[in-house]
Amino acid sequence: MTRTLMPIRTLRGFRDLLPDYMEDFRWVESRVRSVFERAGYREVLTPTVEPFELYEEKEGEQVEQSMFVFEDKGGRRVALRPELTASVARLFASTMGELKLPVKWYYVANMFRYEEPQKMRYREFWQAGAELIGASTPESDAEIVALGWDSMREVGLGDGAFIRLNNVMIVRGMLDSWGVPRDVQERVLTWMDKLGKVSESEVEAGISELIGRDRTRELLGLAELEGKDPSELESLVERYPKSREALENLELVYEAVKAVGIRVRITPALVRGLAYYTGTVFEVFVENVPYALGGGGRYDNLIAEYGGPSTPATGLSLGLDRIVEAVRERGIRGPRSRDGVYIAVVSEDLRVRAFALAQRLRYEGIRSDFELRGGRSLSKQAEYADKLGWRFVIFLGRREVEKGVYVVKDLESWEQHEVPEAELVNFLKSKLTSSL
Amino acid sequence: MTRTLMPIRTLRGFRDLLPDYMEDFRWVESRVRSVFERAGYREVLTPTVEPFELYEEKEGEQVEQSMFVFEDKGGRRVALRPELTASVARLFASTMGELKLPVKWYYVANMFRYEEPQKMRYREFWQAGAELIGASTPESDAEIVALGWDSMREVGLGDGAFIRLNNVMIVRGMLDSWGVPRDVQERVLTWMDKLGKVSESEVEAGISELIGRDRTRELLGLAELEGKDPSELESLVERYPKSREALENLELVYEAVKAVGIRVRITPALVRGLAYYTGTVFEVFVENVPYALGGGGRYDNLIAEYGGPSTPATGLSLGLDRIVEAVRERGIRGPRSRDGVYIAVVSEDLRVRAFALAQRLRYEGIRSDFELRGGRSLSKQAEYADKLGWRFVIFLGRREVEKGVYVVKDLESWEQHEVPEAELVNFLKSKLTSSL
Repeated sequence: MTRTLMPIRTLRGFRDLLPDYMEDFRWVESRVRSVFERAGYREVLTPTVEPFELYEEKEGEQVEQSMFVFEDKGGRRVALRPELTASVARLFASTMGELKLPVKWYYVANMFRYEEPQKMRYREFWQAGAELIGASTPESDAEIVALGWDSMREVGLGDGAFIRLNNVMIVRGMLDSWGVPRDVQERVLTWMDKLGKVSESEVEAGISELIGRDRTRELLGLAELEGKDPSELESLVERYPKSREALENLELVYEAVKAVGIRVRITPALVRGLAYYTGTVFEVFVENVPYALGGGGRYDNLIAEYGGPSTPATGLSLGLDRIVEAVRERGIRGPRSRDGVYIAVVSEDLRVRAFALAQRLRYEGIRSDFELRGGRSLSKQAEYADKLGWRFVIFLGRREVEKGVYVVKDLESWEQHEVPEAELVNFLKSKLTSSL
Repeated sequence: MTRTLMPIRTLRGFRDLLPDYMEDFRWVESRVRSVFERAGYREVLTPTVEPFELYEEKEGEQVEQSMFVFEDKGGRRVALRPELTASVARLFASTMGELKLPVKWYYVANMFRYEEPQKMRYREFWQAGAELIGASTPESDAEIVALGWDSMREVGLGDGAFIRLNNVMIVRGMLDSWGVPRDVQERVLTWMDKLGKVSESEVEAGISELIGRDRTRELLGLAELEGKDPSELESLVERYPKSREALENLELVYEAVKAVGIRVRITPALVRGLAYYTGTVFEVFVENVPYALGGGGRYDNLIAEYGGPSTPATGLSLGLDRIVEAVRERGIRGPRSRDGVYIAVVSEDLRVRAFALAQRLRYEGIRSDFELRGGRSLSKQAEYADKLGWRFVIFLGRREVEKGVYVVKDLESWEQHEVPEAELVNFLKSKLTSSL
């Protein structure tokens, strides 16, 4: 064995997550899961490593350039998944029509992007997402939007939450009418996706180079109708048949979303960064949080492209790291309360007794621990228990073992109780809030 | 966009996991989590991608040869984690003595090995593990063993469960006394780890080549004392001081483990495949399952090797995929029961009403769904609800909306109820078992 003299660090853009963070993370995850499950979604999970072809040309420029791609030992070009919709579409395609439609699936998983790390942008990040496959009704898009909205409510971010909503075919319809080729369209959409992130003049210049100044102005004119009622967009799109159709669909989704009390803002320039969207697109925002906490949209062609039967689909993903951060910044969960029982030992030979007692309590669903380190005074042991937030300390001495009566100290109130062995479990259960 | 004509498959050794499987997986995961949390362990999570140096020469031959290793875009040699103990030791080392000892951490995460796929051996697999850092008492090893045992109990595999227990320094002590260099020791241990997987004569030949025939016989003599009381090993190790010390420690761990009712079998040839173990090693078995469901041991040098303060540590990991498989094979969870409410619509224009009703029920914690696909007759909708295992169907027609009375059909009993709007939530809650 070699000795590493310098400590080894995590790779750039990767994180070690400590217990306080993980507790908030798992809490957010469980809240989002329950939103999905209440709406009838069931969990699936696909591989972390996928064939590169799965993403080739289906993800849009931004994603593809920033993937972790490598050759495996068998010489195959593989990628760490940058998102999960492609995998879920592939999975659905592989079932070849065996499933009753619509299919409702959700996932909670980590993704990878090789980008410059910056605030809340990691190379490994977590998403919870839902896919609704086999339905093209406006209400299916509305339900997917509602999953985003309800998730914000459920984690305590409902007050400031709102949805930006659009239909990407409004823009596509204009570009199609102008005869802009598909690959150029992708680059236009990549530029539009930068609105609000870089200056408008930069975006305008970028798009002008691709489709000329006048058409760029007309396209970016959409951005000025942000927050208006969809009907106010009608005059802008009347010359473009596909855009008109998309606007009609947008109006239906908008009405359905409003009917269930969701705060929604039409954002006609919203296109999202992924090439596979074919209709509704949306993002989930919370006031004073400078980036989207989630988003999604309709992808009616993707499943057929993976060799499955032509099937409409719509979905969303939520950025769990960002939601956890927002929940933590707002202190939504409040301070942690003390819990459980720590068993201190008067002498080293009682450690096995302490172990047996701890195990007995654990089998009763009571969180407990005992002096494992050895060689510490009783007061050092109690200090450790206090620092780690245990609620009770039991001091285990020979006398206690012989008499069958335990001295139980409450580290919250500093009261001390003498509890007979037979009553210990009930005493602790009555005092402790959580049971595992 | 290109059209993929052939369906894209998952990579060899990788799996798509469907909802029925995931429900069992999450159930097993939650049971194991509660075992860890009841014993005072708190969750951490480290990166999926790590610098290759983290594993170099610390993992033992087998693991290193079978890792997913590649160069990232920055030209760094990186690896997909093959296990998590190295990362946790690195994480602890990076805190540089800030934490109160002992530290109790657990994780639930996916790992990667580039091996020939075979039954229950995947290239991406899941582990739940716990690490106890800063304690060297025999009871700390015993507690780690108990986490494995209790996990088996908790998932319903307790009846056939048993622990194979050893101390790797018994073998190391013999090899040290014979002056076998470290790198040769690793190869001897790699061979010993194959006992029970390949023929004994093959193992004997392999080791003989490294350390000669007589010493090999002496070493493999240990294997014959499988299942004996530790005291019966004394004569074998009396000439080897380090082995003697290790045996004394093994006896203490054995006593502690037995004191809490764990079924345990001393397995003197058990060494495990990882180079970093320095004391107790063990594996978790269940009768009639041909492979270990978990294992672990003590690694007192690893943290210092990562640049941290010299700190004793012990830990275990459990193979979640294998445990899920065993739970499913035995049908431990029983058949799924029907749950939730599906809202069918008499006409398409009522879909928004159905959406609003579904949302109202979801906010009450009632799992519900509604007709999202469109264009289906009432009987087709009911058939879909039945196939997917919904407990109730509400038939929503104009009359129901006007009268404020719902027709609720129980798909379990085939009874039909007329329930006024105001009583609907209470009616459903009283009938449904689970609430989310």
